[in-house]
Amino acid sequence: MSDAKLYLFPVPLSADTVQRVLPAYNTEILREIKYFIVENVRSARRFLKQCDKGIEIDSLTFFTLNEQTKREELPEMVKPLDEGKSMGVISEAGCPAIADPGADVVAIAQRKGIEVVPLVGPSSILMSLMGSGFNGQSFAFNGYLPIEKGARGVKLKELERRILRERQTQIFIETPYRNNKLIAELCATLPGNMLLCVASDITGERQTIKTRKLSAWAKAKYDYDKIPTIFLLFSE
Amino acid sequence: MSDAKLYLFPVPLSADTVQRVLPAYNTEILREIKYFIVENVRSARRFLKQCDKGIEIDSLTFFTLNEQTKREELPEMVKPLDEGKSMGVISEAGCPAIADPGADVVAIAQRKGIEVVPLVGPSSILMSLMGSGFNGQSFAFNGYLPIEKGARGVKLKELERRILRERQTQIFIETPYRNNKLIAELCATLPGNMLLCVASDITGERQTIKTRKLSAWAKAKYDYDKIPTIFLLFSE
Repeated sequence: MSDAKLYLFPVPLSADTVQRVLPAYNTEILREIKYFIVENVRSARRFLKQCDKGIEIDSLTFFTLNEQTKREELPEMVKPLDEGKSMGVISEAGCPAIADPGADVVAIAQRKGIEVVPLVGPSSILMSLMGSGFNGQSFAFNGYLPIEKGARGVKLKELERRILRERQTQIFIETPYRNNKLIAELCATLPGNMLLCVASDITGERQTIKTRKLSAWAKAKYDYDKIPTIFLLFSE
Repeated sequence: MSDAKLYLFPVPLSADTVQRVLPAYNTEILREIKYFIVENVRSARRFLKQCDKGIEIDSLTFFTLNEQTKREELPEMVKPLDEGKSMGVISEAGCPAIADPGADVVAIAQRKGIEVVPLVGPSSILMSLMGSGFNGQSFAFNGYLPIEKGARGVKLKELERRILRERQTQIFIETPYRNNKLIAELCATLPGNMLLCVASDITGERQTIKTRKLSAWAKAKYDYDKIPTIFLLFSE
């Protein structure tokens, strides 16, 4: 088996927070790697410079992996691993392979028997769960809710059922410009004694994590328009 | 509203890894805090010394929060917050309030309108998901499987259903001395083409994250006896 490893590098969620949210060790590893699979080359270069101004960006090779990437392109992308060279995966924000295309590359590395090494960094999902006060022994992240009204209603009913029967915290996200509308919708469709936690701008300057009953959210003033936000539901 | 905050401090999963898994910022915050809610006073003191040898442990106040703590004791525990003093929650390993009693204290702080601030650190659940190559857009952590045979079978069937119908990665843990037995059980009861990722000793010296079909696990050699391990199931 090759000694090459696939390292997964988390990226800050907010500007200028590298020192706040990443262990120094990540940068030590970063310095040794010459081949990167990145969601966006420009922001990956900026991230590398933030970690260490001394990194020689021009000596590095970048492969772009995003929603446009075809599955057939992936084997070519991981060739350095086949040749015994370690690679790094860098996503746009947060942890690679969590709600992001990195998982496909990890799956290929796993099939090849290559060692995969995830590194520590900020996850808005996990940090919002920590801050919510909700059940951390059983929880589910659901990504985006369905957009189509019928399917959305069915999904919300199913989440409610899992909260009540299984005591499973339910986590989801929304396109940021629809955040306020989503809160109003939850207030209108779910029982008023259900708890909603709204975790917004995690690790950013405007970070807030607020848990209230839906009956209280219905009367509260708030504005999460266009701010990256995570929603969590639970019941006492 | 008071300026006091409730900080949630993640703790390393393995010995001597503070610098590897925690941002330096966590220690900066730690130095300012005089009141801690901890799962175990002895290990919390050791953790604080590892972060900064210069911390004067004897000037700090510790409250113990563990499985024996009664709910009625919690309001007394958070009194410093009422008095405008920030507090820190430190668990035994990993992230407070994720699979650990800290969530109850966070819930009280939320009800009081006190700002809760989760900090970045290692989560074996999240890191194993990153390393598995499984779906990170939809996943559930289920804690321990039921021990009673009938309930356990029902639960495994339900997890299989959610993997196939919802494409939801299913994550769970086992008492470490039963790890090997659990793998054999999964091989015997679930379809052979289902994928199992076994993530063991995350951040430790013996860290391994291996994804294989159950049919391959059935023939593989392994020994995870007594090593903290996370199990993830998914299907291609």
